[in-house]
Amino acid sequence: MKLISGGITTPIGFKAAGVHCGIKKRKLDLGLLYSEHPAQSAAVFTINKLNAPHIEIDRKNIKKSKIQAILVNSGNANCYNGRRGLNDVKDLIKKLSKSLKVKEESVLFASTGIIGEPLPTSLIKKKIPALVGKLNLDSKDDFAHAILTTDTKIKQVAIKVKLDNKDVIIAVCAKGSGMIYPHMATTLCFIATDAQIKKRALQKALKLNIDKSLNLISVDGDMSPNDMVIALANGQAKNKIIDINSKSFIKFSKALYIVLNRMSEMIIEDAEGATKSIKIHVTGARTLKDAKQLAFAIANSNLVKTAFYGEDPNWGRIISCIGSSGVYLKPKKVEVLIDKVKFFKNFEPIRSNIPKLKRIFKRHKIEITVNLNAGNKVINVQTCDLTNEYVKINAHYRT
Amino acid sequence: MKLISGGITTPIGFKAAGVHCGIKKRKLDLGLLYSEHPAQSAAVFTINKLNAPHIEIDRKNIKKSKIQAILVNSGNANCYNGRRGLNDVKDLIKKLSKSLKVKEESVLFASTGIIGEPLPTSLIKKKIPALVGKLNLDSKDDFAHAILTTDTKIKQVAIKVKLDNKDVIIAVCAKGSGMIYPHMATTLCFIATDAQIKKRALQKALKLNIDKSLNLISVDGDMSPNDMVIALANGQAKNKIIDINSKSFIKFSKALYIVLNRMSEMIIEDAEGATKSIKIHVTGARTLKDAKQLAFAIANSNLVKTAFYGEDPNWGRIISCIGSSGVYLKPKKVEVLIDKVKFFKNFEPIRSNIPKLKRIFKRHKIEITVNLNAGNKVINVQTCDLTNEYVKINAHYRT
Repeated sequence: MKLISGGITTPIGFKAAGVHCGIKKRKLDLGLLYSEHPAQSAAVFTINKLNAPHIEIDRKNIKKSKIQAILVNSGNANCYNGRRGLNDVKDLIKKLSKSLKVKEESVLFASTGIIGEPLPTSLIKKKIPALVGKLNLDSKDDFAHAILTTDTKIKQVAIKVKLDNKDVIIAVCAKGSGMIYPHMATTLCFIATDAQIKKRALQKALKLNIDKSLNLISVDGDMSPNDMVIALANGQAKNKIIDINSKSFIKFSKALYIVLNRMSEMIIEDAEGATKSIKIHVTGARTLKDAKQLAFAIANSNLVKTAFYGEDPNWGRIISCIGSSGVYLKPKKVEVLIDKVKFFKNFEPIRSNIPKLKRIFKRHKIEITVNLNAGNKVINVQTCDLTNEYVKINAHYRT
Repeated sequence: MKLISGGITTPIGFKAAGVHCGIKKRKLDLGLLYSEHPAQSAAVFTINKLNAPHIEIDRKNIKKSKIQAILVNSGNANCYNGRRGLNDVKDLIKKLSKSLKVKEESVLFASTGIIGEPLPTSLIKKKIPALVGKLNLDSKDDFAHAILTTDTKIKQVAIKVKLDNKDVIIAVCAKGSGMIYPHMATTLCFIATDAQIKKRALQKALKLNIDKSLNLISVDGDMSPNDMVIALANGQAKNKIIDINSKSFIKFSKALYIVLNRMSEMIIEDAEGATKSIKIHVTGARTLKDAKQLAFAIANSNLVKTAFYGEDPNWGRIISCIGSSGVYLKPKKVEVLIDKVKFFKNFEPIRSNIPKLKRIFKRHKIEITVNLNAGNKVINVQTCDLTNEYVKINAHYRT
């Protein structure tokens, strides 16, 4: 299996489109993904208890029906708009399903952008015929652009994997880049594959790999109420159908992990205002819960993040974070490394290595390793630095 | 009882001093608090598991002996310096105890500043005689200055309370202003009182009121490994001795709450880079744990904090934070107010009130109220905004 250049329309039988409908001033803000053949689907949604109304509609449609289309707008999250917000979604799904000549329950909806402002549905409805008219194989970039908010680049990745001598493609397209701290899913992320796979196998592979990829990143510790990852599998690769116990399940799942992990890196690399990508590798934890808790304590520490931004090798903040994370540890057992340079063990710094940190803090990709030496649980979490640009972007997001 | 102007030397029998010993470039960096009479003491320490070495020494001395002196340096936290750090503290305590002619175990030590650099003990030792020579009643401001780090102002407050017809004074002096997210205590905070009180009653009053004041603030969600609150009670007010079941205990405890709560406000008002003080009032929670979890979820949200900084009334971020906090709630029951203007209920915004938020977001003191309508538990937490200045301060703390 290998990563290939491509996007959401690279698997057989998927078309896409992206247009400007007027929610944003100039940028593309309305996207459509379409599968010619009804596709098996699986999804992971935000666990935010106060979420956007289309989450429940999508959940129902995925349960009830195969899926043929996903309509996405950016610039307005249609969240916290009460009954009006719900009716707006129903209305748009109805309009699109007529235009595409598919059943209403085979259409999903996704939104991202400003919270709490009514969705300008008339602008969207007016553009639906044009959007449908533009559906083709070459619009993967337009679709990728149409779903962005504060991202500075489009994010798409694809992989080709051989299953029973058939080429199967899995493609992922997502947006970042703030309000990123997934608990069950993150941001908007769409997966298209031409694999032939049972719904339950698709759902299992999705959940499994989201937990090991998108669920292990944090930009700012804030979870969006609109998060969702949706996977569509239209079966056009004609491989032998994959079920949970098939041999090919493992291979499919591994390929899915590779693209989702790469997407996670891409989101962190383009995180709001970020100048550095930071990987946090926790090993030797007593429990997986401890490993995750510690990794995210470091990932979400404003003091650690600002130290990296300032390229100030203030390593004590990392140690303090470990101590305050609440996880099981014995102080003398903790070992800490940055980019393989061990600088802390036996509850004191390794003085001869401290000067090396100055140079390492200037790098753009940095890996922190914490070995608690208290067990065998391991986790990898990705984050970024906290910068003036992040504050600027988020202080004036709407103005 | 009433707040009075005064500081750490206002209670009878306490003297203080502050000098410049050279850890910092120019500012005062070495302070001494001295009680002529051995004082009962109580303390609350950081729960950071990787803490500074004097924490354990102080804990032992408080257990073993009455206390007469606290030596404090700022600019260097003497944290994560291994065995050397421990020996340095012992050495300084020995030197000071000789100079003051008191027992070693009656001396406590506190440090704040950069983590992980050896303490320049020779600079401190050289200044100890001068420091002891300067002990007097008028040096409360010098002491208050000598314990600061990134604070822009000194922080002291005192209260006078009548107990059994005797005037009793409680004074508090503390530093802020970053790495503030107390779990058991916060920052360095010293309390002097001339009350006559049993050790166990002092400890109980301290723990009780720290939990309702300093433990309910957050600047940046980071907990220091050097946090401590120490209370000294020298009995010179000659009131009838207060024990846990005395009537006067309640009054003493209330007075202590008032000064600690005022000190909490002062720390938030002078938080690193902050332009706004934000109080978060959670009511109607099912459990106290839920109330606290929700209040701190909002207090530690970078997106909420930057919205206030930018005076961008992006209220949806508060709602999203409530939803992602993980607490028990029914969406339709949640009501949210800012400065008494209710703008969200029945799972939708109150549109007529939204325009009022624009003006409110420009204020310097703002109160967010969340009523979950799910129980009767209540909590108040204080925080501040997240600004470019905070990032600047912490990106280049040591450089």
